[in-house]
Amino acid sequence: MNQERIQPTSLRDKVITAQEAAQFFKNGMTVGSSGFTRAGDSKAVLKALAARKHTDELKITLITGASLGHDVDGQLAENNILAKRMPFQTDSILRKYINSGEVLFIDQHLGETAELINNKHLPEIDIAVIEVAMIKADGSVIPTTSIGNSATFIEKAKAIILEINLSIPTSIEGIHDVFYPGEYPNRKIIPITQANTIIGQNSIPLDISKVIGIVFTNIADSPATIAEPDQKTIAIASYLLDFLRDEIKAGRLTNSLLPLQAGIGKVANAIFEGFVDSEFHDLTMYSEVLQDSTFDLIDAGKLTFASASSITVSSACYEKIFMNFDKYKDKILLRPQNISNAAEVIRRLGIIAINTAIECDIYGNVNSTHVYGTKMMNGIGGSGDFARNAYLCIFVTQAASKGNNISHIVPMVSHVDHTEHDVDIIVTDYGLADLRGLAPRERAIKIINNCSHPDYRPLLLDYYQRACQEGGHTPHLLNEALEWQARLIETGSMKVDEFALV
Amino acid sequence: MNQERIQPTSLRDKVITAQEAAQFFKNGMTVGSSGFTRAGDSKAVLKALAARKHTDELKITLITGASLGHDVDGQLAENNILAKRMPFQTDSILRKYINSGEVLFIDQHLGETAELINNKHLPEIDIAVIEVAMIKADGSVIPTTSIGNSATFIEKAKAIILEINLSIPTSIEGIHDVFYPGEYPNRKIIPITQANTIIGQNSIPLDISKVIGIVFTNIADSPATIAEPDQKTIAIASYLLDFLRDEIKAGRLTNSLLPLQAGIGKVANAIFEGFVDSEFHDLTMYSEVLQDSTFDLIDAGKLTFASASSITVSSACYEKIFMNFDKYKDKILLRPQNISNAAEVIRRLGIIAINTAIECDIYGNVNSTHVYGTKMMNGIGGSGDFARNAYLCIFVTQAASKGNNISHIVPMVSHVDHTEHDVDIIVTDYGLADLRGLAPRERAIKIINNCSHPDYRPLLLDYYQRACQEGGHTPHLLNEALEWQARLIETGSMKVDEFALV
Ligand SMILES: CC(C)(COP(=O)(O)OP(=O)(O)OC[C@H]1O[C@@H](n2cnc3c(N)ncnc32)[C@H](O)[C@@H]1OP(=O)(O)O)[C@@H](O)C(=O)NCCC(=O)NCCS
Ligand SMILES: CC(C)(COP(=O)(O)OP(=O)(O)OC[C@H]1O[C@@H](n2cnc3c(N)ncnc32)[C@H](O)[C@@H]1OP(=O)(O)O)[C@@H](O)C(=O)NCCC(=O)NCCS
Repeated sequence: MNQERIQPTSLRDKVITAQEAAQFFKNGMTVGSSGFTRAGDSKAVLKALAARKHTDELKITLITGASLGHDVDGQLAENNILAKRMPFQTDSILRKYINSGEVLFIDQHLGETAELINNKHLPEIDIAVIEVAMIKADGSVIPTTSIGNSATFIEKAKAIILEINLSIPTSIEGIHDVFYPGEYPNRKIIPITQANTIIGQNSIPLDISKVIGIVFTNIADSPATIAEPDQKTIAIASYLLDFLRDEIKAGRLTNSLLPLQAGIGKVANAIFEGFVDSEFHDLTMYSEVLQDSTFDLIDAGKLTFASASSITVSSACYEKIFMNFDKYKDKILLRPQNISNAAEVIRRLGIIAINTAIECDIYGNVNSTHVYGTKMMNGIGGSGDFARNAYLCIFVTQAASKGNNISHIVPMVSHVDHTEHDVDIIVTDYGLADLRGLAPRERAIKIINNCSHPDYRPLLLDYYQRACQEGGHTPHLLNEALEWQARLIETGSMKVDEFALV
Repeated sequence: MNQERIQPTSLRDKVITAQEAAQFFKNGMTVGSSGFTRAGDSKAVLKALAARKHTDELKITLITGASLGHDVDGQLAENNILAKRMPFQTDSILRKYINSGEVLFIDQHLGETAELINNKHLPEIDIAVIEVAMIKADGSVIPTTSIGNSATFIEKAKAIILEINLSIPTSIEGIHDVFYPGEYPNRKIIPITQANTIIGQNSIPLDISKVIGIVFTNIADSPATIAEPDQKTIAIASYLLDFLRDEIKAGRLTNSLLPLQAGIGKVANAIFEGFVDSEFHDLTMYSEVLQDSTFDLIDAGKLTFASASSITVSSACYEKIFMNFDKYKDKILLRPQNISNAAEVIRRLGIIAINTAIECDIYGNVNSTHVYGTKMMNGIGGSGDFARNAYLCIFVTQAASKGNNISHIVPMVSHVDHTEHDVDIIVTDYGLADLRGLAPRERAIKIINNCSHPDYRPLLLDYYQRACQEGGHTPHLLNEALEWQARLIETGSMKVDEFALV
């Protein structure tokens, strides 16, 4: 029965245990692994590698699609197996190692990693570890709940370990669309013109002579934890929905909007819930991740098609999807992340991109990655791919948090991931700033007045006005610009009076 | 004879003087004008507008391709006619008005402006002022030495004023390739697969009922001033050429490289001169601006094709081109700037992008626009369009300048235009840092050691080491991060000891 999932009979003697597979990894290797936002990751081999006893140095560079589940990143870090990690992570233990400098992290646009591998701007992949649903007779493999960078890893790796996940029904075949843009100087057009355009094949071609091991697993993806909408996220969603309604009134959008992209998290969920009972219809998504709210919108008859690179949902949603797979199958498509996040396609489709900021400054620059400008949170993910090329680039954040000791609107962001050139709309629970067609001085007034928390508004205005006295296109006081974040580190609060200290 | 340049006879009675044309402009209007890096700009009408006497308020928003010549921007600013200006400028008088806040400037990616107009994210264009070589019988117009945003302005403007420049031979017909990607949700693929792919038509279609005036001129473009390579730019060019040679040795590039983009200026010239007597051959360009060095390389038989949005050259080169136009005609193509700078095409062709930074920080973030983080120099131009999507993104800058009182490698840039996610290579006259595959802490060491000026190297290392003690993925000392630029403002030097003061 399991063997039926390995259709090329010549490969059947490659089945080994995860522990055996873990022995293939040598110090200094570069490993490419499936896994995107905890979906379709290696559940056995990387875990066995993380648990592998080693007395000599055993350090690898690990490249994935995006974040992994099952605490694998943390375990690899704790067992000192990670020299370098890219392009994204969300693991609290790994994060500590990254921020202490023990693990070198490269924070990449998720759409770029495959490009860098193709262009040989990164080291060659020694071993690819890829979760699949099955190996077809032609040797090609059907991915599971994500594609991520798997197509590129499989094409470029010197050796391949496959993890066949028996918990994924083989009926998943057909939801993947695998396309290779090819190599310079003969790159191809990526001919997607609608969220649902199919441009490739539904499995990943594979040179079976590169397969050095096949491991069976039966473990589900780490489920997404769904945070219920709260007062703040509902407020943000409602400002955003009102804005979209105004765009429709102004004749710039229709009730079907344009394809939506949303980062994972509470705000996206709240917005998508807002669509459920609304006048919006025939919505589409062209995003990175299909979340619970995607399937709720399909159920509500509001969303006609959703394209992404992974399905990252709660356990309940996961069950719903696979129990009713026929219902969803022709409404979703998973693509390699260099296609889901391709600048070319994002610009051509005209995406409405909604992502979360750690902090925004009064001129509209956005920090998505660094707490206090120094400590990595998760990484830029796909936010830059979408922000730069979107039809509308929207960033959301709370106005203030942690007992209002943190203002998420600051004089100057402590790290820039998205420049003011790229940011159209900022929304907080206090309001929305539409920055289109505004110069920096106009942006500042609008962001401060519409988006900042009242506790910080006078301070921001004061900073801005004093900066204007010094002049400049983008007025700043360099000696003070980062003082708010410095104060937060020192005192636990961005507030100036001592009563604010926690 | 002049009238032959207006082939639709019905338009011949639209000929007026520039002064008459200047009367069409009303307070509050949005004006779109041809002109890209001083090429193909309005020489008569905007000039007459700048000189127009007005007692009532007469303020317009002026959108162009890029910078204008003939001091028009400065004259418009001085006569208080500019309320808002976008997307780029290089005028020293206008710059003062921008930095004092008297003119609101929007610094845009040059590839974006036409998108924003198409998407109605900017106000509607009331009047377009477009320099052309002639009006064809079908009503379409042949642009002159640039296309810039002219195709979009002509399509979208409510009214059009044409400036027919008699100094441009009508034989220029054929070097333009005008293509419209269309509007959402039905945007078209931009089907360029080589620098020389022709995808559109060689003139701009025009609804002749919108023409409110035609003005004749006979004035050449403001010539580019060519700075001769000096010791520093020769050093930068030589590091860069060595790097390219190493890429060829490593099998990543061939002697024909990939299509080149270069910002204007000394360094680009020095690099291109380096190609003249070299082993490189069959080079191509896919850039914004064709400069003197482009034509030198064609003359040397090294460059087979060059695509851009303008021809911006010295008087001598201008003469050479138009005296030998047949020689160059089939080797160059001018495109709208939303095509020359399209993310889609830049990524597909695999551009090697070389642009100049105002300052770079030790982690590879780049400031292209703001002196002291506050004062606008020129604008981001196309540097972001190319940097983000290039095959190789290279930034060059002097290690130090102004008697070494300015270090162009700083702890933290005072304004971010290009994030470390996008920057592959930094080159100064002290060396080259190849940042591919490096994490921030590795980048810092490499940038400091390879690129910084020896006068600042110990200070940069000291900053970096102290920042590392505080930890973080991107170690910084927020209280000190911008101190160098603050010191420059206060003391005239980034150096710490008093002897460095000028
Ligand atoms: C930006 C991002 C971290 C926000 O996620 P979130 O779940 O809303 O984050 P939170 O508000 O819970 O903040 C996360 C942590 O950072 C801290 N933090 C957030 N903003 C901060 C600020 N301005 N200063 C200091 N700390 C801050 C929070 O306090 C919290 O810390 P804790 O865990 O100790 O409580 C997340 O969206 C992200 O990683 N984005 C980048 C990737 C991306 O956008 N991908 C797009 C497609 S998925
Ligand atoms: C970045 C850019 C200004 C550099 O151009 P350049 O001609 O090499 O500039 P210079 O070195 O002469 O510097 C220009 C001025 O800024 C000042 N300056 C430059 N760097 C500075 C710094 N780090 N701190 C303070 N002042 C600085 C210089 O001193 C000079 O001032 P001055 O005119 O008073 O002497 C220019 O390349 C640009 O505008 N780039 C953005 C647009 C772009 O890249 N387009 C790409 C396609 S064309």
